[in-house]
Amino acid sequence: MSDLDSVLAHIDSDFDAALERLIALLRIKSISTDPAYAEECRICADWHVEDLRSIGFEAQSRKTPGHPIVVAHDRSTPGTSALFYGHYDVQPVDPIELWDHDPFEPFIETRADGTRAIRARGASDDKGQIMAFVEACRAWKAVTGKLPIPISLLIEGEEESGGVNLPPFLKANADELRADIGLICDTNMWDPQTPAIQTMLRGLCGEEIIIKAADRDLHSGFYGSAAANPNHVLAKILAELHDADGRVTIPGFYDGVPELPETLRQQWDTLNFDALAFLGAVGLSVPAGEKGRTVLEMVWSRPTCEVNGMGGGYQGAGFKTVIPAVASAKVSFRLVFDQDPHAIRAAFRKFVKARLPADCDVEFIEHGSGKAIRFPIEAPAFAKASEALTEEWGRQSVFIGGGGSIPVTAELKQKLDMDVILAGFALDDDRIHSPNEKYEMESFRRGIRSWARILHALSQ
Amino acid sequence: MSDLDSVLAHIDSDFDAALERLIALLRIKSISTDPAYAEECRICADWHVEDLRSIGFEAQSRKTPGHPIVVAHDRSTPGTSALFYGHYDVQPVDPIELWDHDPFEPFIETRADGTRAIRARGASDDKGQIMAFVEACRAWKAVTGKLPIPISLLIEGEEESGGVNLPPFLKANADELRADIGLICDTNMWDPQTPAIQTMLRGLCGEEIIIKAADRDLHSGFYGSAAANPNHVLAKILAELHDADGRVTIPGFYDGVPELPETLRQQWDTLNFDALAFLGAVGLSVPAGEKGRTVLEMVWSRPTCEVNGMGGGYQGAGFKTVIPAVASAKVSFRLVFDQDPHAIRAAFRKFVKARLPADCDVEFIEHGSGKAIRFPIEAPAFAKASEALTEEWGRQSVFIGGGGSIPVTAELKQKLDMDVILAGFALDDDRIHSPNEKYEMESFRRGIRSWARILHALSQ
Repeated sequence: MSDLDSVLAHIDSDFDAALERLIALLRIKSISTDPAYAEECRICADWHVEDLRSIGFEAQSRKTPGHPIVVAHDRSTPGTSALFYGHYDVQPVDPIELWDHDPFEPFIETRADGTRAIRARGASDDKGQIMAFVEACRAWKAVTGKLPIPISLLIEGEEESGGVNLPPFLKANADELRADIGLICDTNMWDPQTPAIQTMLRGLCGEEIIIKAADRDLHSGFYGSAAANPNHVLAKILAELHDADGRVTIPGFYDGVPELPETLRQQWDTLNFDALAFLGAVGLSVPAGEKGRTVLEMVWSRPTCEVNGMGGGYQGAGFKTVIPAVASAKVSFRLVFDQDPHAIRAAFRKFVKARLPADCDVEFIEHGSGKAIRFPIEAPAFAKASEALTEEWGRQSVFIGGGGSIPVTAELKQKLDMDVILAGFALDDDRIHSPNEKYEMESFRRGIRSWARILHALSQ
Repeated sequence: MSDLDSVLAHIDSDFDAALERLIALLRIKSISTDPAYAEECRICADWHVEDLRSIGFEAQSRKTPGHPIVVAHDRSTPGTSALFYGHYDVQPVDPIELWDHDPFEPFIETRADGTRAIRARGASDDKGQIMAFVEACRAWKAVTGKLPIPISLLIEGEEESGGVNLPPFLKANADELRADIGLICDTNMWDPQTPAIQTMLRGLCGEEIIIKAADRDLHSGFYGSAAANPNHVLAKILAELHDADGRVTIPGFYDGVPELPETLRQQWDTLNFDALAFLGAVGLSVPAGEKGRTVLEMVWSRPTCEVNGMGGGYQGAGFKTVIPAVASAKVSFRLVFDQDPHAIRAAFRKFVKARLPADCDVEFIEHGSGKAIRFPIEAPAFAKASEALTEEWGRQSVFIGGGGSIPVTAELKQKLDMDVILAGFALDDDRIHSPNEKYEMESFRRGIRSWARILHALSQ
C-alpha cells in the first residue's frame, strides 16, 4: 500500500475523531464583528494553536489591533512550500429565532437518503473547510511521521468583519509567510459531485456619489420645477450608466477587457450551466445584462456596474412634498482582466460631472478598489491539484470563475507575489451567513481526503 | 365720521387690548399632533367659544373624533353672508433649543427702526391671523352694535396634523356652514407693503411606485448584470419623466393646461418678481424647470412632476454590494387649470408599466389627489375685497397664484360650492413651522383694519 493509500485509509478510520474535533471548534462563539465576543475569538485562536502544536506545528497566536491571527509552520520536509489560509471567525447568528437548533451546539442531521450534514454557525464558513485541511495534515503526520511538503498556516479572525488588520500583518510578515503556492479553502464545489478550482476573481471599485442642490430641503409646492431636484439629477445619471444593450456607457470602461480565452470558453461550455435554474432560484427568469453574453460570462468574466444603493428625499410612511437638498447613490464596478480600478474611478467621476446641471454639486466617496486576478491554470501546481481532485471525486475537476471577491487572494497575489489554488468543498446551499448554516459530512470527509491527495500531488 | 372711519379709529384706540387678547390665546399650547396636548387643544377651542360669545356670536365647541371644531354664527344683519375659516392648533416647537424665548410666553420684540413683532408659536400660523378677523368683528360690534354682514366662523384644531376630521364635518354640516363667500386668512402678503389675494391654487396628485425584481436581496458579485436591478429600473423610469427641455413626458399630461390668461400675465408682470432673489435665498441661481417659462409661471401656473423621495438597496454607512429586491419612489404632480388628477394618475401608471423590463413588477400606492382651483377675480366680492385692501395699505392689492395647496379651500369649493377670498397678512419671513415664529405688529394692526374694511365693502 502506498503512503497515500495508507493516509486515505487512516482518514476514513479516524473520521469520528475528526468530527469530534470540528464539533469542539464549532462550539466556540467566535463572532468577530461583535465586541462582546472578543474573548471567544481569543479562545478560538488559542484552540487552533494548541491543536496545530499537537501535530507538530510551530504555532502562535499573534496579536493585532483587532483579533489575533494564528500562524503555524512545519517546514521540516523539503519541497514546494505552501501557505494555507482560513479564518476562524464567524458571522453573527441573527435572526436567532430562525435557527432550528442552537447555532453553537452543532447538530448532526441524518436525511432519509442516509446523507448527513453538520449544522452550526461556521460549519461551512469556514471552520469545516479549515479542519478539512488540518485533518489531512494530521493524517499524513500520523501515518508517515511527516508532511509531504513544507506547510504554513495563516488563520485570521476578522474575515467576517472587514479584515483591516490582515493586509498590514501580511506586509509586516511577508518574508515569514511567503511560500511557493497559496492554498485557500473558502470556496465552493461546482456542484455536489464536481470539484472545482477557482482561477479567476473579479476586481472591485466602489464609489459613492452625493448630489447637492439647494442649501436646505424645499417644499415642492413652492419650489417645484424652479429648483433643481437632486433626485432627478441622480436618477438621470444612474439611468445613463447603461445603454439599451446593457453595456456600461462610461468612456473607456471596456479598456483591458478581451474576449474570453478559447480554452476557458470551451471548458465553461462543458459545465452545462443552467442559467434558468440559477435565476429561477431567486425568482427571476431573464438575464438582465449585456445582450449576446451568457449568464456565466456576465457573472464570471464580464465587468459590471451595479447601483447597490440610492436614496434621496422622504422615504418614510405616507407622503411629504419635499425637494431634498441631497440625493446619493452607492455604485460598484466588478472588474475583469486588465481593467484599472483607478482609471475606472476617474472615468466614472468625469462621467458624473459631465451630467451635472447648473446649481448642482457632487461629492465623491471612495469605497475600496482592487484589480481582477487570474491564476495560470497551465502551471504545474494547478494541473496537479486538479488531477488530485479528479481522482478523489471520480469526476473531472473544473476551473471556474467567480463573481465575488476574496480580498486575501488579491493580497497574496499582489503583496507576496503568490499564485493561489482556491479549492473548497462548500455547496451553494450551505446557507453561509444565514440561519441553519450547514456543512455536508461528505464535504468534510472527502475534503480531508482531497487535501491529502493535493499535498501528495504537490510533493511529486 | 362714517361708520367705517369710527370702526378704524376704535381699532387703533383699542389695539393694546387686542394685543393682550392675542397674547392670552398664544399662551395656550394647542399642539394638535401630540396627544399630550389634547387638553390644551380643548382649552383653546373653549377660549375661542367664550371670546366669540362675548361679542354676540352663538358659538359652540363641537366634538369630532379628534380635536373639537369651533363654530360660531352671527347672522342678525342681512346681506352677503361670509364663512371665515381659521385653525387654532399650532405646530410642535422642536427643536426647542433653537428658540430665543419660551414659544408659549409671547415676546414683544422692538427693533432699532421702531417696528415691532410678536414672537410665539402660532403667532403667524394662525392665531394672529384669526384674531385679526375676530378683532375686526369686535370693533364693528363695539361701534355700531352689529356686524356689517352675516358672519359665521369655522375654527378647526387639526390643520397641522392631517385634518382628517374636517371634510366629514363640512359634509355633515354643509347646510349650516354654507355662505355666499368664504374668507380664509391663512396666507401671506405679496411683500411687506403689498396686500394680496390668492386666486389660483394648484391641485395635487401623489403616487408611490414600488419596483420589485428578485424575491430577495442578492449579492452583486454573484448576480450582478445577470439579475434585474430595481435601482436601475427605477432610475431609468424617473429619468424619463422629463425631457431635455424640462417638460413632463407622460402622454396627455398637458391636456387642460392653457396659456395664462393675458390679464393675469400682465398683472404678474407688474409684480417685478425677483426670480434670482427667490432662488438665491435657498442657495440656487438657475431656474431648473421648463425652458421658456418664468419662475412665477413654474411655481404658480404650470404643472410639475417632482420625485419627493426615492430609495433602494443599502443606504447606511460604508458599502454593501447588494442588488436589492425592491426600490421605490414617491412622485407628486402639481396640477393647474383643468388637469384631471385621475387621468394623470392613470397615464403615469401606464407610463411606468410600459418601461418595466422582464422579471420586474410594480406596485402603486395612491397618495391623495385634488384638482386645481381658480377663483373668478372678476366677481364683485373679489373686486370689493381687493379695493378694501388697496385703501388700507395705500398700495394696489394684487391677485396672485400660489404653489402650495390649502386643502380646506378645495373642500369649500367642491363640497359647499363656495368661492373663497384668500387674504392674509403673514410675511415670507415669519418662520412658520420653525423656531422663533413671529407675526409683525403691523400685520396684526393693519390686518384688523383690512378685515374691517373688507366686511364693510362686502356689505355695499
